[in-house]
Amino acid sequence: MQNLIHKAARLIAEQNTAFLSSIDENGFPNTKAMLPPRKMEGIKTIYFSTNTSSKRVAQFRMNDKACLYFVNRPAFEGVMLIGTMEVLEDSTFKEMLWQKGDELYYPSGITDPDYCVLKFTTLKGRYYSNLKSADFDAS
Amino acid sequence: MQNLIHKAARLIAEQNTAFLSSIDENGFPNTKAMLPPRKMEGIKTIYFSTNTSSKRVAQFRMNDKACLYFVNRPAFEGVMLIGTMEVLEDSTFKEMLWQKGDELYYPSGITDPDYCVLKFTTLKGRYYSNLKSADFDAS
Repeated sequence: MQNLIHKAARLIAEQNTAFLSSIDENGFPNTKAMLPPRKMEGIKTIYFSTNTSSKRVAQFRMNDKACLYFVNRPAFEGVMLIGTMEVLEDSTFKEMLWQKGDELYYPSGITDPDYCVLKFTTLKGRYYSNLKSADFDAS
Repeated sequence: MQNLIHKAARLIAEQNTAFLSSIDENGFPNTKAMLPPRKMEGIKTIYFSTNTSSKRVAQFRMNDKACLYFVNRPAFEGVMLIGTMEVLEDSTFKEMLWQKGDELYYPSGITDPDYCVLKFTTLKGRYYSNLKSADFDAS
C-alpha cells in the first residue's frame, strides 16, 4: 500500500496538469484541467488556487465530493484520487499559496476577493498502470 | 454556437486521450483517461469500446450521468461535454466499433462477453480557451 502511495505521489509531482471533477447542480460530473497543485502534504492533502467566482467553486460549496486525476500518458499510468473539497478564503491559506505572477489572475493581490484556495482531502485512490489497476486507502 | 461546436469537434478529433467521468456508488465523481473515441457523430454521439467487467460500466449501469473532457494542453484549450452514457452489448454496435488489434484486449473477438460499447449522448458543452469559457447547447 505504501509503495502504491509513493508511486502515486511521484506521478502527481511530475505532471503539469490536474484533472479536477465536481458534481454540478443536476448531478452530472464536471471535469476540467487545472494547473498542477500549489502544495501537497503527501497525497492526503492537496491545495490549488482558483477563482472564487468560478463555477467549480459554486459546485463544491453545494457538494464537496470531488475527484482528482493525473496521467502520465506516454507511460500509460494514471492516478485517481477520491475525496472532498473545501473552499478556503482565510488569509492564512491564501498567503500560503500565493506566488509571484499571480497578479495576472488576481489583480488585487492576496486580498483579491476573486482569489481563493481549494483544499482537497484524499479518502482513497486508484493507481492505473497499463491495463491493470490497484486501489489504495489514504484516509 | 455552430462555430463553438465546430471548434469543439476539431479539438476532440485531434487529441489522443479522452477523460471520462462517472458517478460512483457513493456519489463521488470518478475520472479516468480513455483511448480516444472509436466513432463520433458530430459531437452529439460519441462511442468508445471498453471492458464489460470494468468498474466504469457498473457505474454507468447504476447512474448514466457522464462527462467527457478533452484538452489541448499546449494551446490551453479544452472541451467539456455533459451527457448520458449507455452501455451497449448488441452485436451491431460491437461490430461497428471493432478494429484489428482489439484481440489484445478481448481475446474471444467481437463476441467476447467482456467487450462492450459505451455510447455517450451530449446534452451540452463548454469550450475553454485560455482563461475564458463559453457554453453551448448540443441537445
